[in-house]
Amino acid sequence: MSYRAPIKEIRFALEHMAGLNELRQAGEAESLNPELLDAVFDAAARLAEDVLSPLERVGDREGSRLENGVVVTPAGWREAYERYAGGGWNALPFAAEDGGQGLPWTIAMAVQEIWHGANTAFSLCPLLNQAAAELVTRYATQELRARYLPKLVSGEWTGAMSLTEPQAGSDLGAIRTRAWRDGETWRLQGQKIFITYGEHDLTENIVHLVLARTPNAPAGTHGLSLFLTPKFLPDTDGTPGERNDLRCVSLEEKLGIHASPTCLMAYGDNGGATAFLIGEESRGIEAMFTMMNNARLGVGVQATGIAERAAQMARAYAAERVQGREIGDASGKSAKIIQHPDIRRMLLTMRARIEAMRGLALSAALAIDLARRHPDPERRRLEQERADLLTPMVKAWCTDSAVEIASLALQVHGGMGFIEETGIAQVYRDARITPIYEGTNGIQAQDLVFRKVGRDGGAAARGFIHEFGALAKELQHNELRNSVAELEHALDWLLSALQRNPREAGAVSTPFLRLCATVAGGAILAKGAAAAQSLLAQPESDRGFLQARIAQARFYAQAILPEANSIASAITTGAAAATLDATDEAL
Amino acid sequence: MSYRAPIKEIRFALEHMAGLNELRQAGEAESLNPELLDAVFDAAARLAEDVLSPLERVGDREGSRLENGVVVTPAGWREAYERYAGGGWNALPFAAEDGGQGLPWTIAMAVQEIWHGANTAFSLCPLLNQAAAELVTRYATQELRARYLPKLVSGEWTGAMSLTEPQAGSDLGAIRTRAWRDGETWRLQGQKIFITYGEHDLTENIVHLVLARTPNAPAGTHGLSLFLTPKFLPDTDGTPGERNDLRCVSLEEKLGIHASPTCLMAYGDNGGATAFLIGEESRGIEAMFTMMNNARLGVGVQATGIAERAAQMARAYAAERVQGREIGDASGKSAKIIQHPDIRRMLLTMRARIEAMRGLALSAALAIDLARRHPDPERRRLEQERADLLTPMVKAWCTDSAVEIASLALQVHGGMGFIEETGIAQVYRDARITPIYEGTNGIQAQDLVFRKVGRDGGAAARGFIHEFGALAKELQHNELRNSVAELEHALDWLLSALQRNPREAGAVSTPFLRLCATVAGGAILAKGAAAAQSLLAQPESDRGFLQARIAQARFYAQAILPEANSIASAITTGAAAATLDATDEAL
Repeated sequence: MSYRAPIKEIRFALEHMAGLNELRQAGEAESLNPELLDAVFDAAARLAEDVLSPLERVGDREGSRLENGVVVTPAGWREAYERYAGGGWNALPFAAEDGGQGLPWTIAMAVQEIWHGANTAFSLCPLLNQAAAELVTRYATQELRARYLPKLVSGEWTGAMSLTEPQAGSDLGAIRTRAWRDGETWRLQGQKIFITYGEHDLTENIVHLVLARTPNAPAGTHGLSLFLTPKFLPDTDGTPGERNDLRCVSLEEKLGIHASPTCLMAYGDNGGATAFLIGEESRGIEAMFTMMNNARLGVGVQATGIAERAAQMARAYAAERVQGREIGDASGKSAKIIQHPDIRRMLLTMRARIEAMRGLALSAALAIDLARRHPDPERRRLEQERADLLTPMVKAWCTDSAVEIASLALQVHGGMGFIEETGIAQVYRDARITPIYEGTNGIQAQDLVFRKVGRDGGAAARGFIHEFGALAKELQHNELRNSVAELEHALDWLLSALQRNPREAGAVSTPFLRLCATVAGGAILAKGAAAAQSLLAQPESDRGFLQARIAQARFYAQAILPEANSIASAITTGAAAATLDATDEAL
Repeated sequence: MSYRAPIKEIRFALEHMAGLNELRQAGEAESLNPELLDAVFDAAARLAEDVLSPLERVGDREGSRLENGVVVTPAGWREAYERYAGGGWNALPFAAEDGGQGLPWTIAMAVQEIWHGANTAFSLCPLLNQAAAELVTRYATQELRARYLPKLVSGEWTGAMSLTEPQAGSDLGAIRTRAWRDGETWRLQGQKIFITYGEHDLTENIVHLVLARTPNAPAGTHGLSLFLTPKFLPDTDGTPGERNDLRCVSLEEKLGIHASPTCLMAYGDNGGATAFLIGEESRGIEAMFTMMNNARLGVGVQATGIAERAAQMARAYAAERVQGREIGDASGKSAKIIQHPDIRRMLLTMRARIEAMRGLALSAALAIDLARRHPDPERRRLEQERADLLTPMVKAWCTDSAVEIASLALQVHGGMGFIEETGIAQVYRDARITPIYEGTNGIQAQDLVFRKVGRDGGAAARGFIHEFGALAKELQHNELRNSVAELEHALDWLLSALQRNPREAGAVSTPFLRLCATVAGGAILAKGAAAAQSLLAQPESDRGFLQARIAQARFYAQAILPEANSIASAITTGAAAATLDATDEAL
């Protein structure tokens, strides 16, 4: 199947769901002028459709291989990466003084969705690289910035995020990799697992951002420091020089994203890898969270891209496959399966959810941009709150949805869906990583409930929900109004549980996140549908496209949003107690 | 992981959910005496745990290969099959006069779950073989029975179900394989795809049951006849003789069940395969449906076994993996992840659903047995109605649930879940076939709505639902009572849609099936919990086990059953119209 970059849908979501004008009014009018955006998205579509997408199957078949300590990416990968970096794509969201293009993250994330729709195993490398560059921008010394940032921004070098150890996954406090001073610099020693693109042949250098423990540092996450550890130590002029003491020991054999090398990395086997402290000692987790929050949003965007690809494949198959007759048609004429109501239901379920996922992810990106760029400090604070609430929702809900959508898309293919040749099985396998990495979705739910909702007694969450309520009232949208009310009940219950017994809150954290995101998705679609309705009144409007937005929002409100009510009812009427009262023997 | 056959759980489901006493009272007391059942299940557990389960990973790694026209199964497969057939397991549900053990299907299905939990790619062969033997028992002439049945019953030969063609999947009416008379017998010619175990090296002969079209037969399914087409034509003494004109052209490369050969079969390339008519000409679909209904129930049972394996793996991992600290524990002590409320929620979700799946599947099997064996003809009719309603629900709901449960189980493993070495990724891949084959779940939903519910204006369905209502009332079970009421509303809506516009009924057929099964699952668990409550009063009762049944039923009622209400609300308030009003551009 040939992937088509959903530019119209993305542009609609940017303008009418996320609301790009807010950012224009905050001083970004120049970088967001429609002609420039046309050019950006058209060029992205060309690269995605013509270069990245055709390599998606090859990547799965060949995978990346470890040969004599070097990871060899699949055929064509390196040329594709050169096109990507050479086209200036990696530099999109970075400041001009660092060699960037100065576009808002909102646009960079919208473009990232296209890369992931085309070829997600490839695009993971840029995803992490941009997050790494963002971290270096914000936390590294001027000297480190000068030496590393231009190369990371341009994509000439890539960044890797080196956190996990066998005993330290969700719990980074258990990290054992240690670092010690050695003159001007540091040395570090330890093993890390699950390091995505920790080693590869796409670029001449790889910059590892490694969490490690310094001597006498306190236990737990607050004893961790962050180190920049390059594969090759650059000379003063930026040429990669001496090989550093780090190596890829092995690659994991995974369910999916075969072309993305998942490395077991050994640092300092020969005396210690040369490393440079980023930020203050023992405050590495703070800096790492900058990178992680960026990557979490990125993974939500990745999931949206994967889901889009899956839906396109299912749509194309359904429009082609002839099987059975239309219900109620006595003529005996064969039908395309897209004519069957149950298939339409599946396709519409995918589409409505994807538009909601996209709308939410881009809203989160917009909030991040506004939190940095808006002239009003109070508004910046509010947007940061919104970004904080939305990030775990986007990460968890979009990724769970991507898995469900990939499964539905596979189902539309019938027996062919289970055959690897068709390609949809790969999408199903690839999608499955997204609820796991960058913090499992369970961790996202804990983050939402205990930090983002709990830290201010629910004030930020309540404000967020009130906005949906106001929208529902304004649009006289009864389904949305109902589910907002249910969400408020669930929030009240949750806040009292946080006081009474935090374990109860933990027991419903995942359902609560899903509830929030399901309602937020309904709200964002309703907002888009209202905009589409207004646009329909304009002459020369794209009627079919706009009516489709309205139809998707209606389907979501009728068929998907009711799920919110059942989740809220479970939360408020005893699901937590039923969970916690069960003994181990019931599990 | 070492799979443990869940004998206690299965025995509990047999006695207290399905209700084995009904069958004892219908004259099966002898074959169902508890000591005999102890012996059967203990022996099954030994074979499953010691022989089949250790081959599960090997099967995935090696897969079955086509070499010079012969399918070679993985190492150890053949010896395992000899143990299976040699132990008399294949003969379990067949009549003594055919060489069988004369046990009810209910017991055979309960045992089948254990095979699938241990090694589902292996156990597909017996699943289809038993369905084929059942078909031959009921439709073949005395002569064919005499020649083929003893071998199929014993498992010395296996049966294959040969239906699908490239243009004829869900729509069997499009089958083009043709058959023509040739003296006493028939010849047939055509290609079939997706033929599970159509060729293999486990037995000396394979009996293909092939749907084909005879000359001048009417178009559609009513022009199809069923043919027994052996790989080797047996002599009068039953020794496989001349090779028949059929061959395996290629094997599909699949997402999962790698060891189960999925064959492209060519029949009659050299003049026509010798074939024997089963049943009457042009009435093949009727006979095939016997086999398919058996296999559909079998696939629901398979899904239960796969889900059980997944849950056991997740449970074992959670009890071992140390990560993070308990919520509210300030001591800094590390915790096993099974102590985290969100992990408990996941494990309990799996367990509660599996017990409901098992209860439903065994209830369906019991209804089938009672429909054949009960002395009262009116009761037989009622039980057949119940079996007809339950079969599509068991097939679709249990298989969708297995996919969701395998995904949850993978999630409990965190990053390790995505690594093939851990084994849970295989379960996730293997599970995904079950919603597809033996009629996609969409087809099951059409079958439920248009045939099983629609054919008598909803009378049978209403009776079925009333039983849940009576149970809810008797147990004073408010959650169940609520969702039964919601289900009744949805049924009323559906029945009027069937009158008004069947496409509307089609658009909500899948949600309606899920609604029915979700409520039925709640009812069966409530029944089990009530029995557990009574048993607790007995001295020396297995308190921990019984309390766990009650805890699972409670969790289901609180956390899972509310889903029924949201589905019912979607069905009754406009999901169908929202689906059908959307144009192709919205999909």
